[in-house]
Amino acid sequence: MAEIREIEGGVTAARGFWAAATEAGIKYKNRKDMAMVYSKTPCRIAGTFTSNVVKAACVLWDKEIVNSSDYGHAIVVNAGIANACTGQQGLDYCRQTAETTAKLLGVQPEEVLVASTGVIGMQLPMDRILKGVEGLHKSLGNDRQSALDAASAIMTTDTHSKEVAVTFQVGGKEVTLGGMCKGSGMIHPNMCTMLGFLTTDLAISKELLQEALRKDVQDTYNMVSVDGDTSTNDTLLLLANGEAGNPLITEKNEDYETFAAALNYVNTKLAKMMAGDGEGATALIETKVVNAPTKEEAKILAKSVICSSLTKAAIYGHDANWGRILCALGYSGVTFNPEAIELYFQSEAGTIQIFKDGVATDYSEEEAGKILSGPEVRILVDMKSGKESACAWGCDLTYDYVKINADYRS
Amino acid sequence: MAEIREIEGGVTAARGFWAAATEAGIKYKNRKDMAMVYSKTPCRIAGTFTSNVVKAACVLWDKEIVNSSDYGHAIVVNAGIANACTGQQGLDYCRQTAETTAKLLGVQPEEVLVASTGVIGMQLPMDRILKGVEGLHKSLGNDRQSALDAASAIMTTDTHSKEVAVTFQVGGKEVTLGGMCKGSGMIHPNMCTMLGFLTTDLAISKELLQEALRKDVQDTYNMVSVDGDTSTNDTLLLLANGEAGNPLITEKNEDYETFAAALNYVNTKLAKMMAGDGEGATALIETKVVNAPTKEEAKILAKSVICSSLTKAAIYGHDANWGRILCALGYSGVTFNPEAIELYFQSEAGTIQIFKDGVATDYSEEEAGKILSGPEVRILVDMKSGKESACAWGCDLTYDYVKINADYRS
Repeated sequence: MAEIREIEGGVTAARGFWAAATEAGIKYKNRKDMAMVYSKTPCRIAGTFTSNVVKAACVLWDKEIVNSSDYGHAIVVNAGIANACTGQQGLDYCRQTAETTAKLLGVQPEEVLVASTGVIGMQLPMDRILKGVEGLHKSLGNDRQSALDAASAIMTTDTHSKEVAVTFQVGGKEVTLGGMCKGSGMIHPNMCTMLGFLTTDLAISKELLQEALRKDVQDTYNMVSVDGDTSTNDTLLLLANGEAGNPLITEKNEDYETFAAALNYVNTKLAKMMAGDGEGATALIETKVVNAPTKEEAKILAKSVICSSLTKAAIYGHDANWGRILCALGYSGVTFNPEAIELYFQSEAGTIQIFKDGVATDYSEEEAGKILSGPEVRILVDMKSGKESACAWGCDLTYDYVKINADYRS
Repeated sequence: MAEIREIEGGVTAARGFWAAATEAGIKYKNRKDMAMVYSKTPCRIAGTFTSNVVKAACVLWDKEIVNSSDYGHAIVVNAGIANACTGQQGLDYCRQTAETTAKLLGVQPEEVLVASTGVIGMQLPMDRILKGVEGLHKSLGNDRQSALDAASAIMTTDTHSKEVAVTFQVGGKEVTLGGMCKGSGMIHPNMCTMLGFLTTDLAISKELLQEALRKDVQDTYNMVSVDGDTSTNDTLLLLANGEAGNPLITEKNEDYETFAAALNYVNTKLAKMMAGDGEGATALIETKVVNAPTKEEAKILAKSVICSSLTKAAIYGHDANWGRILCALGYSGVTFNPEAIELYFQSEAGTIQIFKDGVATDYSEEEAGKILSGPEVRILVDMKSGKESACAWGCDLTYDYVKINADYRS
């Protein structure tokens, strides 16, 4: 398989993609809170969306476009207000945003995707949104700074912006894939993530673009949980404008596999960034389950541990309270023999075995505490009953998570 | 149906039941940490247990007795150490505890149930446990104080003990049913609760006793969630010694229905006490879903809201962030039309409608905040799509929950 090389960059890394950010004053003060991504060359678009029955207006708008349009040109995003539970008015606002954007860019409204994140139930201030669209159009750029600005503008309670870009060879051509995402609270994606936007200059059929994305989110964003709450707004969009000039990918050949590997690289990295920047988090937690009988069971086990509030609070306290991990594996729904499994803690400070043959090993609490104090902690579970493995990502549960969410709206 | 009357009392309220508590020094200092419940008259026993694959040694011991023994006489409980993930040694310790108890009481080891709660993975200090059993045997009493002491001795992070008792008429005889429970963290029962012990002097067949208990936990303890973690030790035992002298209940007649109603009264009350005393809690939250198409859907919807960390944190902040409730309903797995449902907040301070026709009502944030400041807050969800309803109980998510669980073991 071709080499995948990480490069500095985000949504403007691939050829032909432009981005912009502007301060529309929707909810936050003194920061940019709207972003745009644009390609003059028409893009094939793939998307995955929240499985929540309560879907934001913008999710409904985008789903329609992904399902029925052949091409698209732009995405407009705002932070601060989610445009969810806003009825017909909320849907009208999506259309107005797309229409204004389309007019400025010289495209059709059905070629403009819209995404929102923030408080549920408030209506968007449309005068500011439309003024924001004008500001975005004026400041579009295809340089590094434009991507950085866009990645910052889509943040809510995120503490830093999240971007990744890679290059790889397809059909003798260099292809670039870059992306940005945001996500900090209400993070428990199902079918998809919070807001994530990926751009590539790869030439690929719409069907395969969608299939590659749908398959990859199962092992990346869908394995992240910050708080067990699946948002109304989760949206992941992938735009491919074909400017790399590779022969159009229309079957699952080696080129497709190379792209799928690059997509997995980018999505895994963004998913981990999101987990590590969970609301109030002081540590990224990775649960790796190995030697399970099936992939599905490995995923269920890994996700059960990453969702356990008690495990998350113990990691925050650097407390090797492994009983809570055993407990979370036990209530996951997967059947196994507790006597057979082995448990380890890992971080940059080292590896320590904690549990074996049904009881605790004779480990040092001090050493375990040191390992659990790292900024990235791995819980390694060896099921000793098969060959399949899976990873899930989350973060510790802290005072700040409660603080942020006890009065989020003010 | 016969009247059910609440009376002052707990596990010694029913005729022929004795209780005791003692300070065994297992983990806590300067408090009683072991309890015993005893009936000289043999009791029919029903029990429900954790669905966790990882089961504490005492759960395995009790399950065997409930499944295969006809009668039992006593329960021995310790707080501080859970005797879970303790291998063969943990199982041996259960047998030793039962054997010592049986010898003192003049019964068989297989007539003594054992329950533990506390830290997972540590071995019990058997010398102290066995000395504790002797102390318990010496201080057995059938008075009010003995029940109060036992209810306090089984607490871990609970802030107060939990007891309920009722009387009702069956076959012209006065029957009493009383109980105690503990539970504060790792509370998300599935098939059963944390530790709960019920005693009654009703005469009833073992089959019907078990059936009544199994059915009732579905609507009571199984509708409680503090943190989404299902314990390894959840145990609910119901002992019936028949001393009331009513004609033995062997079929589902009116007497059975009266008993079932009394059982539901006691279990509901204990379940709510447990939810309101969730770790770090400042408020009991009740989610009531009405007019759902099926009972099962009503339960899933109610439980999804009660498990939402974001909703729980918002209630802690007295913030009417109803979008999170809509969101939790939406990801529950139940399909519904968000435009149709109505949402209310209720407490002793009043009732306020928040959501109707797909959008927020024009409610007063100040008034909503006042209602959410009560010690018992109800979230009322009207699905407008059927006739079934369900309740679930939980508590708010606070700084103290994190504090308690970041360093529980020290």
